[in-house]
Amino acid sequence: MAGPFLTMLDLAGVAVFAAAGALAASRRQLDIVSFLFMAAVTGLGGGTLRDLLLGATPIFWISDGRPLALCAAVAVIVYLFAHKLESRYRALLWADAIGLAAYAIVGSGKALATGAGFAPAILLGVVSATFGGIIRDVLTGEKSVLLRREVYVTAALLGAGVFVLADFAGLSRPLAATAGFLAGFGLRAGALAFGWALPVYRPRPPADPGP
Amino acid sequence: MAGPFLTMLDLAGVAVFAAAGALAASRRQLDIVSFLFMAAVTGLGGGTLRDLLLGATPIFWISDGRPLALCAAVAVIVYLFAHKLESRYRALLWADAIGLAAYAIVGSGKALATGAGFAPAILLGVVSATFGGIIRDVLTGEKSVLLRREVYVTAALLGAGVFVLADFAGLSRPLAATAGFLAGFGLRAGALAFGWALPVYRPRPPADPGP
Amino acid sequence: MAGPFLTMLDLAGVAVFAAAGALAASRRQLDIVSFLFMAAVTGLGGGTLRDLLLGATPIFWISDGRPLALCAAVAVIVYLFAHKLESRYRALLWADAIGLAAYAIVGSGKALATGAGFAPAILLGVVSATFGGIIRDVLTGEKSVLLRREVYVTAALLGAGVFVLADFAGLSRPLAATAGFLAGFGLRAGALAFGWALPVYRPRPPADPGP
Repeated sequence: MAGPFLTMLDLAGVAVFAAAGALAASRRQLDIVSFLFMAAVTGLGGGTLRDLLLGATPIFWISDGRPLALCAAVAVIVYLFAHKLESRYRALLWADAIGLAAYAIVGSGKALATGAGFAPAILLGVVSATFGGIIRDVLTGEKSVLLRREVYVTAALLGAGVFVLADFAGLSRPLAATAGFLAGFGLRAGALAFGWALPVYRPRPPADPGP
Repeated sequence: MAGPFLTMLDLAGVAVFAAAGALAASRRQLDIVSFLFMAAVTGLGGGTLRDLLLGATPIFWISDGRPLALCAAVAVIVYLFAHKLESRYRALLWADAIGLAAYAIVGSGKALATGAGFAPAILLGVVSATFGGIIRDVLTGEKSVLLRREVYVTAALLGAGVFVLADFAGLSRPLAATAGFLAGFGLRAGALAFGWALPVYRPRPPADPGP
Repeated sequence: MAGPFLTMLDLAGVAVFAAAGALAASRRQLDIVSFLFMAAVTGLGGGTLRDLLLGATPIFWISDGRPLALCAAVAVIVYLFAHKLESRYRALLWADAIGLAAYAIVGSGKALATGAGFAPAILLGVVSATFGGIIRDVLTGEKSVLLRREVYVTAALLGAGVFVLADFAGLSRPLAATAGFLAGFGLRAGALAFGWALPVYRPRPPADPGP
């Protein structure tokens, strides 16, 4: 269904989201089993929601043991080496940024493969890209990454949109996926490095009451 | 499967929940893309959970682009005009009330159509009616609408219960749906307007220790 | 699919998680309908996620009215008698401990029955065992039980692991399930009674910057 390029991007997304989940566990000073749990839930969460919405059950990590093994390995590595990082929260955000861009492409690609239209394919990319971060923040009680000022959902939307548009325009799948990934990751990287943000909603005073 | 009346109620539920989601985004001063995201997730969330539980995949908004387009249009309208509202939180609660009543009926109706019994059909209505509000509050970090004093789950339960009972009693589907909707919305409207609430649980002092 | 022993364990898990959900409602001084809602969502949540991930839809409580009736009965009993408890939070944690151990076994057992491998079956047990408590805490705004210091996920992991290993080793299903249940519940009981905890992650000072 998905070509080798999307499969590679999928595993890369699992690994970096697992790292972000394990880093969230380290910030909460949890134990090693909770590192494993947070790595597995965050690493596999977005793809799980994607497969549920597409009706692709049993879920990918039940029929295939490798994604889970990858999460476990990443959790152990983070447990052993996270203290060497200057800022574990910055590392978490950068891992999350790679995962966000990767999952936006993979989610949209799987949706296209089931015959979804333009807009639904993009939404599925956005939802599966953001769900790992959402569930990680809910489980560890962090302020949701969705509420941060710099662009987040927008980066997933841009990545998924560029990929789907390039696919509709007839580009080869790996080329479209690369373009989408670079667009999504580039925007989020700019947001993390330079604080890029869209203008926020500022309520003006209420209108005069009608006659 | 669902008749035209339930389909209309379904789209109405999507639109008002999308408005509630976009209003929640405005209260958090998010950007326009986050308005779109919150409108889509809140507007489509309850129906998504309903379809997942019934095994109706791929989910309705993947095979049909219109519900998502409706959410996007509502998000833009709220972004442009929400500042004209006297109280965006009151507007959010009233939109949520319409969605709550509509989704209680649609959820129960779809469950009955798959052969679910009395009580499971009612629970499916209650769960799909309340899920949009739950996920909206979780994502924006608001205090859960479930914890508000006035009746909320009860209104969904009354609406779904009246609809399912009327259906079992042999009323036509549109008549049963109208009765259920009016009962559910009427109770929630009374709660919002007059503070209607059930007596709450008040723990008494612990019993004497046994002999 | 599941034998009579797993079915019994499943219903026991539903009942004690329902009790934990209703006790959480009592701690928030909610009304009787919210007791019913919290009992149903907490009691049925773990099994619902399990069935969704395995693709076993419609979900068990839609095709069978008994689990839901059990939750309703438990909610009413808790509403009437919870004030007799010395500490409702302790009661909640102990009910949760029984449910945790029971669902770890049932979740792993159902996964094995669909042909899942070793590690995925264990993760499915852990996820379905912990999800009821997670959703209960999210809905009532309690600090997540996952973040408590004493072992929690670890108990689910031990129970599921012992069960799956004993099953792979050829023990009869009821014997393997009993061993897993006792291991998981025993560890969590020790945690509640004596504060057993794994060492937590303590970040050391950051490494010297490289050359």
